[in-house]
Amino acid sequence: MSKVINGVNVTDLMQTMEAVKADPTVAKFRFRLNNEWLEGGHNRSTLNEFYGAGQLHHRAKSFLIHADEPTVLLGRDQAPNPAEYLLTALAACVTSSLVYHAAARGIKIEEVASQVEGDVDVRGFLGLDPSVRNGFQNIRMTLAIHADLTDKQLEELSSLGTGFSPVFDSVTNGVPVTVRTERMKTEQTADAA
Amino acid sequence: MSKVINGVNVTDLMQTMEAVKADPTVAKFRFRLNNEWLEGGHNRSTLNEFYGAGQLHHRAKSFLIHADEPTVLLGRDQAPNPAEYLLTALAACVTSSLVYHAAARGIKIEEVASQVEGDVDVRGFLGLDPSVRNGFQNIRMTLAIHADLTDKQLEELSSLGTGFSPVFDSVTNGVPVTVRTERMKTEQTADAA
Repeated sequence: MSKVINGVNVTDLMQTMEAVKADPTVAKFRFRLNNEWLEGGHNRSTLNEFYGAGQLHHRAKSFLIHADEPTVLLGRDQAPNPAEYLLTALAACVTSSLVYHAAARGIKIEEVASQVEGDVDVRGFLGLDPSVRNGFQNIRMTLAIHADLTDKQLEELSSLGTGFSPVFDSVTNGVPVTVRTERMKTEQTADAA
Repeated sequence: MSKVINGVNVTDLMQTMEAVKADPTVAKFRFRLNNEWLEGGHNRSTLNEFYGAGQLHHRAKSFLIHADEPTVLLGRDQAPNPAEYLLTALAACVTSSLVYHAAARGIKIEEVASQVEGDVDVRGFLGLDPSVRNGFQNIRMTLAIHADLTDKQLEELSSLGTGFSPVFDSVTNGVPVTVRTERMKTEQTADAA
């Protein structure tokens, strides 16, 4: 019988940890997507396969994620914009990391809600002031947790989220990104559709 | 009559730049979201209002973004995972930045497609090896562009994307993130629903 806490199968989680300890290559994951520009600030990412736990995984159905810009940023507001997806990644990852690590420690959580907001000065994007960065100047997250815990334990629980989250680490510490540019082949266009 | 290139209204873009030059506070944007934990690795972000160009903007309809984990990461694979949303934000932002800045320079683009992939070693997330980072170890992007340009011009076009993208800057250089933890109030639960 599996032990499930916070919706996380802790028996499987412990087995995963043992498998990784026995063979660290099991821990290597590679996520990927294909993005296609549609028009103006509107583009669409297609996510399906990823590599992890020693094999390539194919989803039965791809996830399609549209991005656009609001009208004030000259888009048609058909979807969240890229900066909003970055904040989404952060909120989702800190939340899941908190929930998983609580489960691993046997801590039951009733509810978690968060608000994340970040400031961007578009003088950077517009190239109007080189002293203004293009990206977020800062991001603030408020985590509200409902659990039968003391104030000190609530803080510790929150720090599990930020302390283990892959996206929190990526966003706060940065990631090296390499970019290769190529001329599109006609064949490639068909693949990307 | 507005001039539109690559689906971007360049007349409006130039007017935006003039407005920002006249009053830099117009350039200040604040994006935000509310996230609610559902179960295990499944949570949902709600995006609606944002601040920018001197006012708060409300969308007619909120965008709901679900995140989950694939089964190999103990989720139910109902949506992309947070790491995949980070890659999505990056691909979308570099693409839009490239398209907008090309439009501002009068460069017509036919097609843009990209592939983005990133490596994560989950020994970091699992807390099994403190020498392994939690986040992406590296991210690779391949940008395929179809435009009537020389190879050198294609490279320059690509560098407009990376050179002005808010998410590219955020991910490569990092962003300070502050987190505040609080006990959930019953009223708050209703708000988040």
